[in-house]
Amino acid sequence: MGIIRDNGVVYKDVNDVDLGPNYDEIYLHADVKAPRMAGMIARLFVWILEMKLIGSVLLYFLKKNNRIQKLVSYGVMEDSPLYAPLHPYEDVTEEELKNLDHGLSPAEQAQQAVNCLPSSDTILQDSYFSFRRWTILDYSRAYQSRKITPLVVAERLISAVVQSSSPGKDMSFFISYDAQDILRQATESTLRYQRGKPISVLDGVPIAVKDEIDCMPYPTTGGSKWLHKARPCTEDACCVQRLRSCGAMLMGKTNMHELGAGTSGINPHYGTARNPYDPKRIAGGSSSGSAAVVCAGLCPAALGVDGGGSVRMPAALCGVIGLKPSFGRIPHSGVLPLNWTVGMVGVLAGTVEDSLIVYAAISGSTEPPQLTTPKLCLPILKPSNMPSIRLAKSNEWFNDCSDDIRACCLRALSGLHKVYGWETVEVTVPDIEVMRLAHYVTIGSECTASIAHHLEKGGRSKSGLDVRVALSIYGSFDSRDYLNAQRIRNRQMRFHEKIFSMADVIVSPMVGVTAYEIKDDAKKTGELDYVNGAALIRYSIAGNFLGLPAVTVPVGYDTLGLPIGIQFIGKPWSEAKLIQIAYAMEALCKADYKKPQVFYDLLTKS
Amino acid sequence: MGIIRDNGVVYKDVNDVDLGPNYDEIYLHADVKAPRMAGMIARLFVWILEMKLIGSVLLYFLKKNNRIQKLVSYGVMEDSPLYAPLHPYEDVTEEELKNLDHGLSPAEQAQQAVNCLPSSDTILQDSYFSFRRWTILDYSRAYQSRKITPLVVAERLISAVVQSSSPGKDMSFFISYDAQDILRQATESTLRYQRGKPISVLDGVPIAVKDEIDCMPYPTTGGSKWLHKARPCTEDACCVQRLRSCGAMLMGKTNMHELGAGTSGINPHYGTARNPYDPKRIAGGSSSGSAAVVCAGLCPAALGVDGGGSVRMPAALCGVIGLKPSFGRIPHSGVLPLNWTVGMVGVLAGTVEDSLIVYAAISGSTEPPQLTTPKLCLPILKPSNMPSIRLAKSNEWFNDCSDDIRACCLRALSGLHKVYGWETVEVTVPDIEVMRLAHYVTIGSECTASIAHHLEKGGRSKSGLDVRVALSIYGSFDSRDYLNAQRIRNRQMRFHEKIFSMADVIVSPMVGVTAYEIKDDAKKTGELDYVNGAALIRYSIAGNFLGLPAVTVPVGYDTLGLPIGIQFIGKPWSEAKLIQIAYAMEALCKADYKKPQVFYDLLTKS
Repeated sequence: MGIIRDNGVVYKDVNDVDLGPNYDEIYLHADVKAPRMAGMIARLFVWILEMKLIGSVLLYFLKKNNRIQKLVSYGVMEDSPLYAPLHPYEDVTEEELKNLDHGLSPAEQAQQAVNCLPSSDTILQDSYFSFRRWTILDYSRAYQSRKITPLVVAERLISAVVQSSSPGKDMSFFISYDAQDILRQATESTLRYQRGKPISVLDGVPIAVKDEIDCMPYPTTGGSKWLHKARPCTEDACCVQRLRSCGAMLMGKTNMHELGAGTSGINPHYGTARNPYDPKRIAGGSSSGSAAVVCAGLCPAALGVDGGGSVRMPAALCGVIGLKPSFGRIPHSGVLPLNWTVGMVGVLAGTVEDSLIVYAAISGSTEPPQLTTPKLCLPILKPSNMPSIRLAKSNEWFNDCSDDIRACCLRALSGLHKVYGWETVEVTVPDIEVMRLAHYVTIGSECTASIAHHLEKGGRSKSGLDVRVALSIYGSFDSRDYLNAQRIRNRQMRFHEKIFSMADVIVSPMVGVTAYEIKDDAKKTGELDYVNGAALIRYSIAGNFLGLPAVTVPVGYDTLGLPIGIQFIGKPWSEAKLIQIAYAMEALCKADYKKPQVFYDLLTKS
Repeated sequence: MGIIRDNGVVYKDVNDVDLGPNYDEIYLHADVKAPRMAGMIARLFVWILEMKLIGSVLLYFLKKNNRIQKLVSYGVMEDSPLYAPLHPYEDVTEEELKNLDHGLSPAEQAQQAVNCLPSSDTILQDSYFSFRRWTILDYSRAYQSRKITPLVVAERLISAVVQSSSPGKDMSFFISYDAQDILRQATESTLRYQRGKPISVLDGVPIAVKDEIDCMPYPTTGGSKWLHKARPCTEDACCVQRLRSCGAMLMGKTNMHELGAGTSGINPHYGTARNPYDPKRIAGGSSSGSAAVVCAGLCPAALGVDGGGSVRMPAALCGVIGLKPSFGRIPHSGVLPLNWTVGMVGVLAGTVEDSLIVYAAISGSTEPPQLTTPKLCLPILKPSNMPSIRLAKSNEWFNDCSDDIRACCLRALSGLHKVYGWETVEVTVPDIEVMRLAHYVTIGSECTASIAHHLEKGGRSKSGLDVRVALSIYGSFDSRDYLNAQRIRNRQMRFHEKIFSMADVIVSPMVGVTAYEIKDDAKKTGELDYVNGAALIRYSIAGNFLGLPAVTVPVGYDTLGLPIGIQFIGKPWSEAKLIQIAYAMEALCKADYKKPQVFYDLLTKS
């Protein structure tokens, strides 16, 4: 950062900022003064905020002298804007990585991923685990060995979903699912196995899709009561189409925070997806249902969309893997256009190997390859042969979380050092809070420009109260706010480039708090809780604002038994190495994974 | 365009828009309702506009239901934003074009350009011309043959500038020039010629620089009274440094419209650069002085900056060549950061061959070349061997100008057909007016974000009244306006790509009106004249908003004897072909070029 003048911060030249551990600027804690609001109070606040003149005056005073104004709008810097987090690509050739050619089919890419997995003789016995989820390979082998058919799995699945939605359980995993459609897919898959011709390792494997991604025959609600009416879903999104072409059994549309505009997953329209480790608590958001269904054993993997940690945060809160690839790695067509420069399809999975298989199946450009098109690169996962890794750690940022999370993540780091000899490099990632605010301005502005015409035709009044407040703030950003946010993006990109010259990945906790309780007054109206929101999102932003690949891996539990995730943020296009790192991390922790309170075993029990 | 709903236009899918001549949508004429204002009325208007609350309310009503709101802010479209007009590059190899390697020095590149000129035995006798300006080669040959020295030229130059600034003349060509500095450069150049070692064809050739580009030892005012104090000039801009390295004699900083925020060149602080063809009239803007000095014979070429036609419009009004290269072709460092995505350094020159030499000297990236870095390509100018060219012409747009301009440009087109056999393809460039407004939102938003902190520290109150109105409007755009403008940029980019699959260049008049009179009340306060402004800028926008190269060539005069320019807009990176076309056009017209009322002959007379 720099000196604070009358109105705004005067930023230093990027080259003059010291990124070493002895950074002389103070670490700015998120300083959220807004009180939590829900129920009647929230209703009153929204009513005032949406009044034409008074609302504008209220917003004016809310914005005046707040941090967005001081750090973003009125920030003084020489940097030009960087509008989209696209990175130039260089080929990587390392022994443990495999470059795939352009033009393979999704099923071929999935098979390449399977070839990267450790050979079955090195697979651990089930007795090693206190608890483990079934993997894609478990399903595939069970189907191939005729122990079970996709149809039986589908029937168990449907009954599990019905059971989880029953009064008193109210897990609210799904916004829509169609038993007929699931059974139809299962029947077709079963026939393929009977003929001995499954399409791929994903054939008949249940996969859930966040309701922000088009997937026939379902509407794409985005967690709202109206968006699917304004924008009908007419075909599969590209990523869904690719999974379908692999034979995957698409099991419905998972619950989410309305319009992706929040981190809790509390949804007043479709109920709040519950955390299977403690159903009184949030699953996190916005891909709440996708995290919860993987956690609860309903499927080995699910798709989410990550515009501000929306895949990784719920993954961490639910104790599963969350992988957000580089911006541009997975085609975005058929995903709700809620923003253009920060959101990316991501993968939630019970294990790192499953995140790799799904990632491989859905990755790659749809455009004819050009010189600059990144090749898809997969990691060869050998537990015995891990590469040497330098982990960048920014102390004050790393420590800005609950005691349990900090202790657990530090333990994980020291495990990596002990077992693999990986070194930690102390650095400073500067202006984290500035980046959070600039990202907020960006996602808010882009959301407004994209859906304002729908909102004006009645969408706004049909939305939850927290979303209505968000939309009002989103709509208040001017072009200077937006452009200065892009200049901050440029600064941060350069800071991160420098950090990546010192280390292979950046390591941090994934979230600042573990899953918190859903309060009764929030259920019907939604909840405004910017304090918890800021704590959840603190570590997510670089993945979105800078388009960097990032992954979260469960590394333990807090004193209440709630999952804790660590995060690795990689260089652009370094997903393969990131998955290797996640695999190494998982290997150290998986013996101690705990079973959630709500769990369904579709392979061995009904 | 599309249907107009309650609030905004619902745009058609780009693929559904017919670009043929029988386009079914109406051509939208610029519909400017704002009255002309200057003097006291303008002062009163600005006073109200800048009042905190009342100003906002006034702006609210000015924006409400106006075209920006209907066509941009509330426009409904599926397109995603395109933030910067950067184009992928493909190598072109054509017989008449020469690809240069990366890494040549500016002087080497200038020499390559000289090698592209027709051999001297094909050069026309002076008797062919009713009037012609001295070219860079004329200077270079005169110096080499010792007919004259750079020092003598410098002395004549200084005396001409003094004479042109004398009371009663008040040509206001320059904002600053330093006789000592000019004489020093001239002395050094003269010595080099005496030693028989001129650096390049540009050695000792006077070149003027718009006061928007850093050039030592001058401040960079941007035509304002304050910006150079807030942002001191500490080194040459890259383009100036390149000219200096060729030995060019940099003769000072030319007048301009304040902050580039207008098209007339009327400047209340430094006087208004007069049109040498009629000193009662504007030279056009914003690069007014650069066009005027070339027109008046003070230098064969000058640098300008073109953010919305600011090189090409004054070139056309002053009867000289104006070349705006592709976005990204010339490094922008050292140019006032008044915007990031529309402005480009351009060349004003008396002849096409001189625009080529200067273009060659200053072009090329400063970054290490990558696969995608465009090579510099120069045209081999052979009057007898012109390529076959298809010219796209959009009728209603082409015709939206004064009768004299239309007739003159049509005559030029039929000349091209008769002499070279070039065919005209009738097309429709859709939504020209929408593009003008989207560009206005873009340049205004970027200007605000870039200089707002200076304005807040007192710059605003030191600015001319027209600029203060512009700044108030610029500051009123919200992020939705900006983002929707970028979505329109994407649409237009795709429209233009399709048009370039049908033709080599787009042809149009350069401006809708010829140079108009400077009214007395405008001189002290600046002038608000959006009607003339819209008429001037009508044909400029694609060059800036889409980053396309474009060139204007004088093709005749109106009934008052004021110059008329035609424009050719090229495919991305097609400057070489564009210069060929301009050269062909000039060849047809140059016998009839007229001498301006104010003209200085530095080579043969003092």
